[in-house]
Amino acid sequence: MARIVECVPNFSEGRDKEKIERIVGVFNNRDQVKLINYEADGDYNRTVVTLIGSPEKVIEAIMDMIKVVIDEIDLNHHTGEHARMGAVDVIPFIPVSDVTMSECVEYANILAQKISNIYDIPCFMYAEAAKEEKRIALPNIRKGEFEGMKEKIKLPEWKPDYGRAEIHPTFGVIGVGARDFLVAYNIDVLTTDEKKTANFAKAIRQSSGGYQYVQAGPVFLENRGHTQVTMNILNFKKNPIYRIFETVKMEARRYHMEVPSAEIVGLIPKDALVKSLKYYYDVDGIEFPEDITLHEVVRMSEHYLKLRDFSVDKIIDYFL
Amino acid sequence: MARIVECVPNFSEGRDKEKIERIVGVFNNRDQVKLINYEADGDYNRTVVTLIGSPEKVIEAIMDMIKVVIDEIDLNHHTGEHARMGAVDVIPFIPVSDVTMSECVEYANILAQKISNIYDIPCFMYAEAAKEEKRIALPNIRKGEFEGMKEKIKLPEWKPDYGRAEIHPTFGVIGVGARDFLVAYNIDVLTTDEKKTANFAKAIRQSSGGYQYVQAGPVFLENRGHTQVTMNILNFKKNPIYRIFETVKMEARRYHMEVPSAEIVGLIPKDALVKSLKYYYDVDGIEFPEDITLHEVVRMSEHYLKLRDFSVDKIIDYFL
Repeated sequence: MARIVECVPNFSEGRDKEKIERIVGVFNNRDQVKLINYEADGDYNRTVVTLIGSPEKVIEAIMDMIKVVIDEIDLNHHTGEHARMGAVDVIPFIPVSDVTMSECVEYANILAQKISNIYDIPCFMYAEAAKEEKRIALPNIRKGEFEGMKEKIKLPEWKPDYGRAEIHPTFGVIGVGARDFLVAYNIDVLTTDEKKTANFAKAIRQSSGGYQYVQAGPVFLENRGHTQVTMNILNFKKNPIYRIFETVKMEARRYHMEVPSAEIVGLIPKDALVKSLKYYYDVDGIEFPEDITLHEVVRMSEHYLKLRDFSVDKIIDYFL
Repeated sequence: MARIVECVPNFSEGRDKEKIERIVGVFNNRDQVKLINYEADGDYNRTVVTLIGSPEKVIEAIMDMIKVVIDEIDLNHHTGEHARMGAVDVIPFIPVSDVTMSECVEYANILAQKISNIYDIPCFMYAEAAKEEKRIALPNIRKGEFEGMKEKIKLPEWKPDYGRAEIHPTFGVIGVGARDFLVAYNIDVLTTDEKKTANFAKAIRQSSGGYQYVQAGPVFLENRGHTQVTMNILNFKKNPIYRIFETVKMEARRYHMEVPSAEIVGLIPKDALVKSLKYYYDVDGIEFPEDITLHEVVRMSEHYLKLRDFSVDKIIDYFL
């Protein structure tokens, strides 16, 4: 089995299409690195890129991307809703196949060392790659953003993990990290009452007493005319989708609200779907076919998990 | 409304009935203090006492109890399965009515001060009353137990919060604390398969990714011939019973197991039941009667929450 990591660099340009194309263009036609997608957000003025590939080749590709970004983005002229401290703001490594978390931490360190050596851009290690407690949460590091980092980086407690204690004058600094696969999962609730949907979010999210690895909030979808519980699942093994879906349906029952569908934003591992499908197979008393195809996983996810707008190219294993 | 706290002192004798009677005897016929119950466990060699009353009178009663225990228990001759560091091992204060948590912390401090002054027994403040992070969890303080505490208490980091850094030669030391009301709740699962029941416990307990304020494990009940998910709910407001009950039923569905009943061990506030009953009233589309009597709460808890062996004297408000 090939050794595969996912890497999700975020860069600080979400409006200028030509610029964005020139930046993501570095990922075209590479050996053992695949650009899965990129999503530019104008309000955020930020683009999120999803790559998978062999760890060494991903590191090479990211180095090439940074080279282009140095020429394309000057944070002194950047505005947007999303907090940022670098022209490339964050670079997390995520284990996907035959790679451990501690190996991903190593790759993050290798990359950060290279970036500081070759481009003289300071790097802070975060999440699983953090070297101290208060650097685990990225917002702690990023507080003050590009503008505040000029002085903050000179404080002894905010010495960067790699590079000099001086920001790159146009690029800033980068957060390089390692984390588990994050599933972005939304459940549709057929109501316009955002307050009630907020109650469902509170029932399931860690910060209000709910499931440990779930972040959740309510959102009203203008164009669909109903609300959603919008979530990040930080550990789909410990908090499987079916359990979250069934818990939200249980809460909605008291208000006699329909929960007809759900969606995955971005990618999801086949494993995460299979783990949840097995629950419904068990409930229905049907044996789960261990040799299930990806297309069958899609069909059953639509049937049992009520996933809408779902297709095989949302399953990460499709690209492996 | 009267100001009421609950207090649950645990003392280190669970076998000698006459001794136990002499100790709990101090709680008989007191003004504004009511002995709710006491449970002696022979294997643990420990007795758990539940009192409610006005804070000042509860402090007086505990002081009297300690005086008796000094004469009755010598920990140098104590054996039993439960860890202990004192003849009275722990004394937690719990807010019940018209008393805040921070007031309970104050009462705990007043009591600890008195105990160390009058009986020369060192006290460690724990849980909400802890004065430092590593003293929040009682097991951290108690590690080494009575025998190890002789030396441990001399270490600068284990200086007691009240009293000299020297254990009482026969009594040891006491943990005095404040905490939220804890609901001991068990759900019956009609199976002998403890492993599957362990899966349900894992689904809902904090330590495995489940609900934040739930501790849970599987247990096989010899005399009933089936398993239980046995739980402590540390915050029934954030993790209401109905949600836990429904989640366990949801998990059991995949194994086609029946979840016919549940039980409360010890006391539960009316509030905790009402909060959960309202869910089922909402599901059934019935308005909840805000003037519901305690007997009606019992009947509806049997109906909706399937509580067995339940009666009005398990509701703490019955004694107020």
